Amino acid sequence: MSNHKEVRVFAPATVANVAVGYDILGFAINRPGDEIVARFNPELDGLKITAITGTGNKVLPFDVEKNTAGVSAQRLLEHLGKADVGIELEVHKRMPFGSGLGSSAASSAGAVVAVNELLGAPLSRESLLYFTVLGEVVADGSFHADNVAPSLVGGITLIRSNESLDIHHLPVPENLHVAVIHPDLEILTKDARAVLSDTVPLGTAVHQMGSLASFIVALYTNDLPLLGRSLHDHIIEPQRKQLIKGFDDVKAAAMSRGALGCSISGAGPSMFAICDSGYLAQAVGQGMIEAFAAHGINSQLYVSPINQEGVVVL
Amino acid sequence: MSNHKEVRVFAPATVANVAVGYDILGFAINRPGDEIVARFNPELDGLKITAITGTGNKVLPFDVEKNTAGVSAQRLLEHLGKADVGIELEVHKRMPFGSGLGSSAASSAGAVVAVNELLGAPLSRESLLYFTVLGEVVADGSFHADNVAPSLVGGITLIRSNESLDIHHLPVPENLHVAVIHPDLEILTKDARAVLSDTVPLGTAVHQMGSLASFIVALYTNDLPLLGRSLHDHIIEPQRKQLIKGFDDVKAAAMSRGALGCSISGAGPSMFAICDSGYLAQAVGQGMIEAFAAHGINSQLYVSPINQEGVVVL
Repeated sequence: MSNHKEVRVFAPATVANVAVGYDILGFAINRPGDEIVARFNPELDGLKITAITGTGNKVLPFDVEKNTAGVSAQRLLEHLGKADVGIELEVHKRMPFGSGLGSSAASSAGAVVAVNELLGAPLSRESLLYFTVLGEVVADGSFHADNVAPSLVGGITLIRSNESLDIHHLPVPENLHVAVIHPDLEILTKDARAVLSDTVPLGTAVHQMGSLASFIVALYTNDLPLLGRSLHDHIIEPQRKQLIKGFDDVKAAAMSRGALGCSISGAGPSMFAICDSGYLAQAVGQGMIEAFAAHGINSQLYVSPINQEGVVVL
Repeated sequence: MSNHKEVRVFAPATVANVAVGYDILGFAINRPGDEIVARFNPELDGLKITAITGTGNKVLPFDVEKNTAGVSAQRLLEHLGKADVGIELEVHKRMPFGSGLGSSAASSAGAVVAVNELLGAPLSRESLLYFTVLGEVVADGSFHADNVAPSLVGGITLIRSNESLDIHHLPVPENLHVAVIHPDLEILTKDARAVLSDTVPLGTAVHQMGSLASFIVALYTNDLPLLGRSLHDHIIEPQRKQLIKGFDDVKAAAMSRGALGCSISGAGPSMFAICDSGYLAQAVGQGMIEAFAAHGINSQLYVSPINQEGVVVL
């Protein structure tokens, strides 16, 4: 490690889709997440990934153009006319891949914030969003902001349009806590997409739109019973739950212990349960661990309020 | 006319669907609407429809069980154990049928309020909703509240679930006015439904959900530019606009004059344009009249704020 100036950040994991808002809703949680370090190195003539840790038995590419954090940071540097500045990037994974917790999004969000801060923060947090989405394109081939937006800025975010990155922060009811459970299963995002039908019955779409709209109303009116009545996924969950062994039992465990709602986090296999207190979220999460265990599946529980900070400089 | 006690009410027309919320959103306007009279008549042994006016060259049934106002009132009387009370019901249509302005809904809403008031208002306004929806079943065969709810209680209403009649009032941004235009064309609700595909492409459904969610956000945050960006119907309008001669030109006329959004009212052929002032709504409406006229179609314009009262006792 050199003595050159560096910036170290933490970028939080995220829950996308949130039952009612496939591809348009997401929220951040306090843990897990990734740590990213950006450091000036005058001996380099551009960006270089110099360390990747925490990947377990998997491998992430060091090639800047093939790494989600690298691509995001590189496009930002090019936009700023700083592509020739020598910068080391370290990616310290503190969360599982392919988990449905926005692993690639956290790396992208952390990388652009770290690099932007290193350069004196020429861009606002919101202006960085575009570059994080370019990282997502490397990760799974699609231009979508439902993980990167909440990881970057925190809170519950609505993506009106991925094309124009029209993003809105939604109010977070007091006391809302979430139990997020990551079972020792793996689903590739592309497989999770492949299982989905190309079409939705019109009646199902209408039903889902009613749930989505009332979810938004519940956030604005702090109406937790309505939030609970609204948190139903009529479109995606019925198709994807087959990919998660024990899903029905785990969901039943969460609901029977008092969760307001429970569904798949992102493309899975992680699941989330929204609760009206941290205490309840802990109990609900414990029940979900036990339900997975009854199917012979180990799992990791994270209990958190909705993260409101997004990426933080450490 | 007898000297017995009577109640006369006005029930407003409504715009359902509202571009972003097929079958789940509706709002009321000040005019047009229906007048309904309920009057005790001890010579009768139950409910009888004694007058129907304003139907032009069309005919509405006097048979209580075949008339949307009659059925709604009859079910209410049965619920209250008052089915043997002699009551005359008069239905004075002050709005066109088959117009997409909730004609049957206004009659139902007016009838139940008139009868409820006549009996000393034993039920709350919200409790009357169920009976109005039964009237809609007679009118078009489906159990839906997107017209009756706003006609009954006013404002912009969200139907989370038609099955459980979980209804929510949404905030109305200041100054919001609407131009509603009824062209001299007729579309039957059943034909308007028949033209719709049974399925929606998943990507289109997601796009529509983003627009719906941001429309709700715009109402809560009084963000009229966002309201304008949100007011797009990606699902229904592209399929139904073929039923409305001149649609594209009329919409273009509204948008070019500054409307925030313009789409089909209910099942059509009426169209609505939402504007940020009454002055603008008048100008926009005038442009819409001219655009229909260029296609040889006469039309009637109504300019109104969002009606906040619903049915009023006169």
